[in-house]
Amino acid sequence: MAGGKFITFEGGEGSGKSTQAQRLAAFVGVAGIEVVLTREPGGTPFAEQVRDLVLSGTTAKHGATAEALLFFAARADHVETLIRPALASGKWVICDRFTDSTRVYQGVAGSVPADVIEMLNRVAAGATQPDLTLILDIDAAAGLARATERREAKSSAGADPFEQRDLSFHQRLRQGYLGVAGADPGRCRVIDATGTPDAVQQRVHEAVLGRFGAHLSGKAR
Amino acid sequence: MAGGKFITFEGGEGSGKSTQAQRLAAFVGVAGIEVVLTREPGGTPFAEQVRDLVLSGTTAKHGATAEALLFFAARADHVETLIRPALASGKWVICDRFTDSTRVYQGVAGSVPADVIEMLNRVAAGATQPDLTLILDIDAAAGLARATERREAKSSAGADPFEQRDLSFHQRLRQGYLGVAGADPGRCRVIDATGTPDAVQQRVHEAVLGRFGAHLSGKAR
Repeated sequence: MAGGKFITFEGGEGSGKSTQAQRLAAFVGVAGIEVVLTREPGGTPFAEQVRDLVLSGTTAKHGATAEALLFFAARADHVETLIRPALASGKWVICDRFTDSTRVYQGVAGSVPADVIEMLNRVAAGATQPDLTLILDIDAAAGLARATERREAKSSAGADPFEQRDLSFHQRLRQGYLGVAGADPGRCRVIDATGTPDAVQQRVHEAVLGRFGAHLSGKAR
Repeated sequence: MAGGKFITFEGGEGSGKSTQAQRLAAFVGVAGIEVVLTREPGGTPFAEQVRDLVLSGTTAKHGATAEALLFFAARADHVETLIRPALASGKWVICDRFTDSTRVYQGVAGSVPADVIEMLNRVAAGATQPDLTLILDIDAAAGLARATERREAKSSAGADPFEQRDLSFHQRLRQGYLGVAGADPGRCRVIDATGTPDAVQQRVHEAVLGRFGAHLSGKAR
């Protein structure tokens, strides 16, 4: 049996990744395909512990290299114990963030050299790489405004350490993601993330059907 | 001004590393040299948070690759913010465990390939490598008995996840350390860690004087 498909969502703060990942998982599930919906950092008990450490807001000051290594530690566990076995058993895996986040946050917008990130990616994830990456693209200021709105609506705690960075950081993230898409056009699709969640969902479905339509319709019948 | 010396202590559980590191720091300090005494995992606020995560005993199950990446995340911060600046300012750094622990625990006695560990070491520590490594060598069963005794004397909590491993694991650690020493005889000295702390201390001082005697006596006068 052929393995499942590995689809990742990427984008800056407030780009709607989590919502769209959930909606796509439901869409693929309706087509009769078993889906694992997961996220990074996190996705396994160990990786969620690492997530708590790095996003807690009480994390001690540290450099971009240490941070990248921490994210790859979480990723190694996530790939080994969840993603790879799921794909091998034919399930589709939909993941909210993956290595492109490290490429962009700690690489382009941080200070970790690209070759170091690629090397760490091989160590942590090996051949388990996304088949399709949906990059939700939105103006940095608009995305941050959405993220703030969402946080206030949920009355959730404070912004995480990344959300707290200044606008120019978030603009570098956006450019970084567009650079990732340009460097790997076979894998990446840039999705306009403005408008309502329904409108964005429609664009996501079109991109997924354009790439994997035969798999989805074949299963649904 | 020439930089300081970087001396690491290595060895299995109960080999006396922490005690001997403290005593050597005092000895070097008496010679009029500024010393930084530190440890791994840990040594900086961020690295100590990582240490708490991995040695807490409540850490979720994870593989050796994830663990190695985690240790190198702590090490990257430790080197960048503490060890490298101290050496650059002429201080001597005495560290209880460093990369050899990862080589042995996650490499030889774990499952992480040696070339991956060397690559991660370059990413995390770069050119900041020990000038002298003292490997405290003791029979694995005798070392474990010492570690248990020490824990009971301190009424400290339970054994950490490494101490809890079986005797054959600890025997692989010992062989791993002897292998490290054999592969890098210019840097490593194997110290007989049997006998009283005073006896071991004497052997440590001889090794350090044999290597850096000129520096020590030059400063003391």
